[in-house]
Amino acid sequence: MRASIVIVGDEILIGQVTDTNSGWICQKLNGIGIEIIKIITVGDDYAQIVSGMEVALEASDVLLMTGGLGPTKDDITKKAIAGFLGVDLFFHEPTFERIKKIFERLGRILSPYHHDQCMMPEGVEILHNSMGTAPGMCFRYNSKQIISMPGVPFEMKAIMEEQVLPRFRNKSDLKIVHKTIMTACTGETIIENKIRSIVNDMPEYINIAYLPSLGAVRVRLTGKGSDGQVLEEEISYYARCIAEALGPIVYGWEDTTLEQAVQQLCIDKKIKVGTAESCTGGAIAARIVTVPGSSDYFYGGVVSYSNNIKCELLHVAESTLQNYGAVSEHTVKEMVVGAINQLKVDVAIAVSGIAGPNGGTPEKPVGTIWICAGNKSVQETYLLKAGKDRTKNIETTVVYALDFLRRFILKNY
Amino acid sequence: MRASIVIVGDEILIGQVTDTNSGWICQKLNGIGIEIIKIITVGDDYAQIVSGMEVALEASDVLLMTGGLGPTKDDITKKAIAGFLGVDLFFHEPTFERIKKIFERLGRILSPYHHDQCMMPEGVEILHNSMGTAPGMCFRYNSKQIISMPGVPFEMKAIMEEQVLPRFRNKSDLKIVHKTIMTACTGETIIENKIRSIVNDMPEYINIAYLPSLGAVRVRLTGKGSDGQVLEEEISYYARCIAEALGPIVYGWEDTTLEQAVQQLCIDKKIKVGTAESCTGGAIAARIVTVPGSSDYFYGGVVSYSNNIKCELLHVAESTLQNYGAVSEHTVKEMVVGAINQLKVDVAIAVSGIAGPNGGTPEKPVGTIWICAGNKSVQETYLLKAGKDRTKNIETTVVYALDFLRRFILKNY
Repeated sequence: MRASIVIVGDEILIGQVTDTNSGWICQKLNGIGIEIIKIITVGDDYAQIVSGMEVALEASDVLLMTGGLGPTKDDITKKAIAGFLGVDLFFHEPTFERIKKIFERLGRILSPYHHDQCMMPEGVEILHNSMGTAPGMCFRYNSKQIISMPGVPFEMKAIMEEQVLPRFRNKSDLKIVHKTIMTACTGETIIENKIRSIVNDMPEYINIAYLPSLGAVRVRLTGKGSDGQVLEEEISYYARCIAEALGPIVYGWEDTTLEQAVQQLCIDKKIKVGTAESCTGGAIAARIVTVPGSSDYFYGGVVSYSNNIKCELLHVAESTLQNYGAVSEHTVKEMVVGAINQLKVDVAIAVSGIAGPNGGTPEKPVGTIWICAGNKSVQETYLLKAGKDRTKNIETTVVYALDFLRRFILKNY
Repeated sequence: MRASIVIVGDEILIGQVTDTNSGWICQKLNGIGIEIIKIITVGDDYAQIVSGMEVALEASDVLLMTGGLGPTKDDITKKAIAGFLGVDLFFHEPTFERIKKIFERLGRILSPYHHDQCMMPEGVEILHNSMGTAPGMCFRYNSKQIISMPGVPFEMKAIMEEQVLPRFRNKSDLKIVHKTIMTACTGETIIENKIRSIVNDMPEYINIAYLPSLGAVRVRLTGKGSDGQVLEEEISYYARCIAEALGPIVYGWEDTTLEQAVQQLCIDKKIKVGTAESCTGGAIAARIVTVPGSSDYFYGGVVSYSNNIKCELLHVAESTLQNYGAVSEHTVKEMVVGAINQLKVDVAIAVSGIAGPNGGTPEKPVGTIWICAGNKSVQETYLLKAGKDRTKNIETTVVYALDFLRRFILKNY
């Protein structure tokens, strides 16, 4: 089974928006054994969309389209699909009823555009959009299928996960099995060195890929073959060997996030957590609360961006700030103790650093970041030497802090 | 002058790598008046590359290709170009000499691959690569041009900047001018209604596009014509009309972020700001500190994820929580007052809501979010009715809170 993708959007062709939809779709289809042959990006233009569809369908069984739906796009994709299929648009009553209900609930008024939004090419099969008003659409074309989805990523993803992937799963003879080992705060080359002998031992139909992101590396095994179960067992075996060889840098499997791993650990061990953040400005706490149920273990935090707040709310001694500076091992230790007392938690994580671009000195250049994790009796610290880019430094600090917290708990509880 | 792009790479079609080359190329070509008609992404496959080239050249004067060059790619793009042009590959002596010199300097040994790397399709014009060993290539095809570059972004960018853009600059009679108006917290359809008469009045060579993201819409004007200066003036005129008609929902121009707009406003008016966050868990503060220099106006915040912290650190009355609940107008008002006193700031922004997926009740369903901005004497509140998705709710709340803060300051200072 082979698929192609057509992305519709002027904003991509002028370079204003980077298309991330196609990469996500490729990953997901690959995961269920469907190969992607091409991706064609065209503007909001009837003729270009139709010609893109023609080219895409030449060598593929399935065409997935995103974008070009919505009032201000003039719903150009729907018109192009109708033109391509040689059918008319009709008013789809159930979609209108649904939009009407949503708007009534939100107390908003329908505009004529919402009426237009319900016009659909004949022969459409509606793909429910749980995240927005514009539904996905599926069409049969000879023995092939055309699927059209909105370009808004979270709407597209919801339609893919809930409507599209289930209908293609198990349709392909080729089985592709992936297994991903999540690691934190260790470089790709170090990881590679540690597991080289295991990797050399793997059969050639199992591949390994190292996917680095800020402060983390995903180690992904991919096997292709006809017998899914044998493949599954083999990959699991090698993945276990790799995880064992890597030890505590492994924090989880598949798409687990570091914040999910921390949450699970804290709930299992009944530990209440708080944060005290300077240079990350709340980003660690914000990452923690992205996980549903985080209130079961996370009580809150203090964003002590100014020295004054470090003293007043976290009870860092003024002499500490004077003698060692806000970015120092002493300060982050006192921030942890202050946070534990003030927030009434068991364990706190604190960071203080120079995110940049300004504020660096020869002794403490931009990227100097102190991290401390601790409880009432023990505080452990780590000096992160990050780079020069502010955004990257903040994101890296969040990852290192969460991982440092995880390892502190693993070690001390 | 119209161009198309062919991106070559299996890694993109399996979703492992996001193509950022094409977006960058689009921006650069657009900036010198060259329109991009399509982008076609194909795998490392001879037939797919050739067919991609055919489709791309149908409607374009220039074809730019990246990727598919290099040892592990078997230099598949060069073979495909030779096949497409109906020519042979030949050994390009000067390229070999250059590589030999570079390797001698680095003390590295040439491999047989480096010999292969010097094979070029006949008719090639070499485009010097100042960042690597694989040069770019240019070919004439009828009256059109084919340009092929390595896929490594910094090598591609160097060849584009030094070799490709200079040869097309001022070659295009078409000037393209963009102007973007940034708006917050107002729907696309409402915006459209407010400016319809202005838009209808615009000449047909000026187009408008609405680019929505969570809680924000970018309104972009694009003009195409032969006289860049006249176009610039016309677009500026219409953009000013639109901004005036939209009023305070406009927070900036071009790529300004909401947090940048807030920072500028607070620094101009000498206002110190603090945050008190419940459901966003620090995400508002984290967004604020992404901007360099935020410490000039942002002192810090309290993440009061638990009720206890709302009382202890923000001095919200226990009776308020009991009588009205943590998610209530009364609570966010007291959070603002508490934050002002505790953080010693002029203005604070507070949010408390039910992000979901759990915690909703019939009276306060998931997505119910109270926002308050205020100073010591006046606190203004807003009830945001967001949706069901936790991540979306948090992100939407951040945007609404920042914008509510911005408008509070505009109105009261």
